[in-house]
Amino acid sequence: MRFKINKDKLLYHLLIAQKALSTKTPNPALQGIKIDVEADKLVMTTSNSDISIKVMLEDASLDVESTGSTLIPGKYFIEIIRKLDGQSVTFSQVEDNLLRIEADHSDITLNMLDLDDYPELQFKETDQSIKVNVRTLKTIIRQTAFATSSIENRPILTGVNFTIDGDRLSGVATDSYRLSQKEIPLEDSYEKMNVIIPGRSLEELMKILENNQSDVEVHFDQNRVLFKYENVLFHSRLLEGNYPETSKLIPAEFPVQITFNKEQLITAIERASLLSSRDGQNAIVKLNVRNDDVVEISSNSPEIGRVLEEVHPADEIQGSPIKIAFSSKYVLEALKVFNSSEVTVKFTGEIRPFIITGEYDDDMLQLILPVKTD
Amino acid sequence: MRFKINKDKLLYHLLIAQKALSTKTPNPALQGIKIDVEADKLVMTTSNSDISIKVMLEDASLDVESTGSTLIPGKYFIEIIRKLDGQSVTFSQVEDNLLRIEADHSDITLNMLDLDDYPELQFKETDQSIKVNVRTLKTIIRQTAFATSSIENRPILTGVNFTIDGDRLSGVATDSYRLSQKEIPLEDSYEKMNVIIPGRSLEELMKILENNQSDVEVHFDQNRVLFKYENVLFHSRLLEGNYPETSKLIPAEFPVQITFNKEQLITAIERASLLSSRDGQNAIVKLNVRNDDVVEISSNSPEIGRVLEEVHPADEIQGSPIKIAFSSKYVLEALKVFNSSEVTVKFTGEIRPFIITGEYDDDMLQLILPVKTD
Repeated sequence: MRFKINKDKLLYHLLIAQKALSTKTPNPALQGIKIDVEADKLVMTTSNSDISIKVMLEDASLDVESTGSTLIPGKYFIEIIRKLDGQSVTFSQVEDNLLRIEADHSDITLNMLDLDDYPELQFKETDQSIKVNVRTLKTIIRQTAFATSSIENRPILTGVNFTIDGDRLSGVATDSYRLSQKEIPLEDSYEKMNVIIPGRSLEELMKILENNQSDVEVHFDQNRVLFKYENVLFHSRLLEGNYPETSKLIPAEFPVQITFNKEQLITAIERASLLSSRDGQNAIVKLNVRNDDVVEISSNSPEIGRVLEEVHPADEIQGSPIKIAFSSKYVLEALKVFNSSEVTVKFTGEIRPFIITGEYDDDMLQLILPVKTD
Repeated sequence: MRFKINKDKLLYHLLIAQKALSTKTPNPALQGIKIDVEADKLVMTTSNSDISIKVMLEDASLDVESTGSTLIPGKYFIEIIRKLDGQSVTFSQVEDNLLRIEADHSDITLNMLDLDDYPELQFKETDQSIKVNVRTLKTIIRQTAFATSSIENRPILTGVNFTIDGDRLSGVATDSYRLSQKEIPLEDSYEKMNVIIPGRSLEELMKILENNQSDVEVHFDQNRVLFKYENVLFHSRLLEGNYPETSKLIPAEFPVQITFNKEQLITAIERASLLSSRDGQNAIVKLNVRNDDVVEISSNSPEIGRVLEEVHPADEIQGSPIKIAFSSKYVLEALKVFNSSEVTVKFTGEIRPFIITGEYDDDMLQLILPVKTD
């Protein structure tokens, strides 16, 4: 095996593969990047317990003298490539288990891992797949995945529930204190589908997807999902089990509705969170509609002090005055995924979940459970 | 007490005072910022076990309605000021122990700390002082303080030893594995002086000193030092004891001398450090002068691999070939404080300390102890 390639091109693709590189793993082979050197391309493969990535690198700078396969310690390999001087790097296998890396005035030899220990990975397409624009896919992930649970005691809630009904793709996430839901139209109609993708897999996928016009092919079967995006195959396991029926959690009537400038509401809640003795964003903040239609956002920590913010709604308040308390973290995280500059908060009652919607955020809904106070 | 001031001006000065704010302290009063509101200025004071800071804030935006003093929980106060909207903030004392902060639509009340618990702090000038340009002071600190010991078992080595002899100010730091020494000329002559300033105090001082043309007055006595810089008084305790006599550690003859392009040497050593199983920079790196006058920088970690870098000296090598091994961390940290783009490494022998100097770094010397290898 011997080939030459442009250093920056190689590094760019290695950093994609790195997203699935295991750092702590009982199987040392998974700390490696598998590189298959073919006549006209490099194929790089990485895997951890949740996701596997395969990156194809075809480039004019690639000059393959002889093909072959190798398994290289990922962390060291990436650090070396990052630090090399010069544009072109030459790789060759020497002896039985050494990879030689030559660039400029550097001559580096890296012990290879045993390729026989590397697991068989599945990147096969399935019978059921959809096509979705990459920006649309990024939107639905960004607006739902943050609301998944990070606690493992109900594993199913650590994932986002995606369903397809005709030409509608819907994503729902909840940690049982808040819920996030987004629906997008697809260009074609598809068979019904219902899967739960781990939130962490989606976070890694987000780092790879760029803001361009590409389409992503998404392949599903019983227990896995495969994203085909440009020269990358991204595979994730699915979470098994039945996702809770969330639609019945969402109130149908909202007698009180207040429209806010989003940034004003965010900064008011952020300031009200400052004096919490609980850590930062987890502060309990109260919202109180006064008779003069000014909204008070406040918090009170007897040991530290109190904050009172006056926010003037962007529009006339609908309904009667209301008092409600909530965890600032949940409301802030929800507000921050809106694209609209104005958001409407809709209340059913003081101890009922409230929802947030935005004029320019079609078919997106953020729901938050209030907190009981005295 | 009641006053109004521009928010950004206040924040800027608070962030200076913050450098001496205690976060963990058995004395809760030291978590506070003391603010004395005088007719024409605010005086802000903070202190921890090593340093105390007093900042005077005079500004056209300051409008004092009534004077007074207060002790405010520092962390919360700074976070509030940072997050406020609007330009102008009004502060007033309400009831006995509350500070009210009004800005734009925010109305915040902060419990004050008990001013009676705040210690008496010394910011008095002493009989002995020198004057030094702020850029010169920053240079001598930057080029020495990094070499202090971070281990407390010989407390004296956690400080930088400053001495004055006539119109020469010298700074020396060593952790017993490397030594850094810089001497600067002063504009005037002074009495002899010999003090040890804690490295950590100097690091905090560095964050306050800007790159301008100001002079800094430095006042000393037996156990403390006071820096007067613009509107800031910066006080530090001194370390007590006798600093070791370091001049005898420095070899007098250097039969082998090699001049390098500094950046080339740094990147070669950085790459050679990459494959160390010890953590990062602590790698053992070897330097070997070949007969063809190329310098090899190399490392070898049997489990991971090996690196061989060829560096072409910037000038003819003086002396005979030499082999030496060193800790990459020490050499890299030393190289990075040089202003010169070429540095000369001077060797006495394979197990003797070697030094580094630079053409444009007058009176600066970095010394490093080699490591024995087989």
